[in-house]
Amino acid sequence: MKITFCCTGTKAEPWLEGLRKALPDAHVDVWQPGAPQADHAVVWAPPQQFLDEQSALKGLFNIGAGVDALLRLKLPPGVQVVRLDDAGMSVQMAEYVCHAVIRHFREFDGYETDVKAGKWSYRKPRERHEFPVGVMGLGVLGERVARALRVFEFPVHGWSRTPKAIEGVSTHSGEVGFDTFLSSSRVLVNLLPLTADTQDILNRKTLGRLRPGGYLVNVARGAHLVEDDLLALLDSGHLAGATLDVFRTEPLPAAHPFWNHPKITLTPHTSARTLRDESIAQIASKIRALEAGLPIAGVVDPARGY
Amino acid sequence: MKITFCCTGTKAEPWLEGLRKALPDAHVDVWQPGAPQADHAVVWAPPQQFLDEQSALKGLFNIGAGVDALLRLKLPPGVQVVRLDDAGMSVQMAEYVCHAVIRHFREFDGYETDVKAGKWSYRKPRERHEFPVGVMGLGVLGERVARALRVFEFPVHGWSRTPKAIEGVSTHSGEVGFDTFLSSSRVLVNLLPLTADTQDILNRKTLGRLRPGGYLVNVARGAHLVEDDLLALLDSGHLAGATLDVFRTEPLPAAHPFWNHPKITLTPHTSARTLRDESIAQIASKIRALEAGLPIAGVVDPARGY
Repeated sequence: MKITFCCTGTKAEPWLEGLRKALPDAHVDVWQPGAPQADHAVVWAPPQQFLDEQSALKGLFNIGAGVDALLRLKLPPGVQVVRLDDAGMSVQMAEYVCHAVIRHFREFDGYETDVKAGKWSYRKPRERHEFPVGVMGLGVLGERVARALRVFEFPVHGWSRTPKAIEGVSTHSGEVGFDTFLSSSRVLVNLLPLTADTQDILNRKTLGRLRPGGYLVNVARGAHLVEDDLLALLDSGHLAGATLDVFRTEPLPAAHPFWNHPKITLTPHTSARTLRDESIAQIASKIRALEAGLPIAGVVDPARGY
Repeated sequence: MKITFCCTGTKAEPWLEGLRKALPDAHVDVWQPGAPQADHAVVWAPPQQFLDEQSALKGLFNIGAGVDALLRLKLPPGVQVVRLDDAGMSVQMAEYVCHAVIRHFREFDGYETDVKAGKWSYRKPRERHEFPVGVMGLGVLGERVARALRVFEFPVHGWSRTPKAIEGVSTHSGEVGFDTFLSSSRVLVNLLPLTADTQDILNRKTLGRLRPGGYLVNVARGAHLVEDDLLALLDSGHLAGATLDVFRTEPLPAAHPFWNHPKITLTPHTSARTLRDESIAQIASKIRALEAGLPIAGVVDPARGY
């Protein structure tokens, strides 16, 4: 069995070493143009030429949760596109989102400003029931985030394309449930996959439906958000702030108005990083399962987009 | 039945209104010197004169979790000292501690500094297993905090005076277990009651036993911490930082070295605030139980100190 590795912006050696150790019977190599046909590929943002040449691939393993960039390319016929599911990402996402929501709810930013000014301040505690959190996207990451928020007793709403049930979470689904979901939420956490249906889904109309004093946490993709609409709603005061980890262009361009915006906290796409050891173990075990004709989790439906 | 109210630094009216509503058969009044004997008292840092005069009290209800200030006074004979247990405090404590631990572990402070400098930075993800968290004090608050930290998959150790078992937490107890507890922990969260035994318990010797790169979160009492010892360990680099919510003198004096110390995050005693509605409901229900001769939770053992 041959495995080829083609990951833009990734140091290949430790991945090759790990994959060889996990699959001692396989030949694992970095892809070069003109390389022989491989059975499986481990990829991140590969060039179109890679996919054109590797026409015999059975499995195409993306080393991230989102496959939007991959699905914009022309894929070999019959290949199964497989995304990482969890592999240490959901706990990072739960951490990131809970930190952002607690920080906003408890006004720790404000206390920090007071302390910098040498001020021992009093702020009236906010009421938890006035901070319902809505989680968009209830896959492995979204469900984990929703459950973690419940630990802190926030009212939690969830929205997904198809109906889902999560204990302690008010779930809504489809277009019919979207308005109720939005108007029930004050803090909105976006964890949707990026597809033709979800691009620009965070816009003036949808964000405008959040309760007054709304707050956005975007940890999915930059293209979900219409950036000017966010800025307008922050200016008008309808939204109190946002924590953003993803952007339409990354790295965020130097002149972008999000840098140092007083109501925006931003991080450099760090909410849930691919953890190499966990990912290698997961990919190796899925390759073994595919080769044995067994079903695996995380197979992408290209028509649906995730 | 007569209830008297004597809480330093607290707006009395909403408390009186709430207590009268919850206990419609009781006479509820603010204490004045020379007032008639009451059956129960709701107090925060009352003067000694109050306790000297109110010699017939059956229940003395402290509107906070820590009774250290109250127990330094001379109490009426036979009175039961009752502290708030939980009443909305444990969820606040879990929020505060998880926010502080996640913020440190994920280096969100560092990212914020980078962003302020206009820098899109990369930081190598840290390994969770290298950040074991030790929780000192496993009462209602400590247990809740330990369980919440487990949600984020941190290795969690717990220490208490007497043995306790908490699922998923490695518990240690007594003097014999203290050294192992400290050397197993990198992040130390203090939630002990303040007693003669625990005063100054966070000192050069104990904090020096934490793993290198240690981090302190003090959310109990300022007198637990020997401040100069913390500063020395931060200077030497053995400790990487601290989040402090409580101080030996509050408000923290203007010239104090903790203000604007680059490795210290401080907040003005805000980790878990007394929530009026929850506290009134709990106190009223305990008064009813005491009057009916039923056992109640949160009765303090003055000899033990909590």
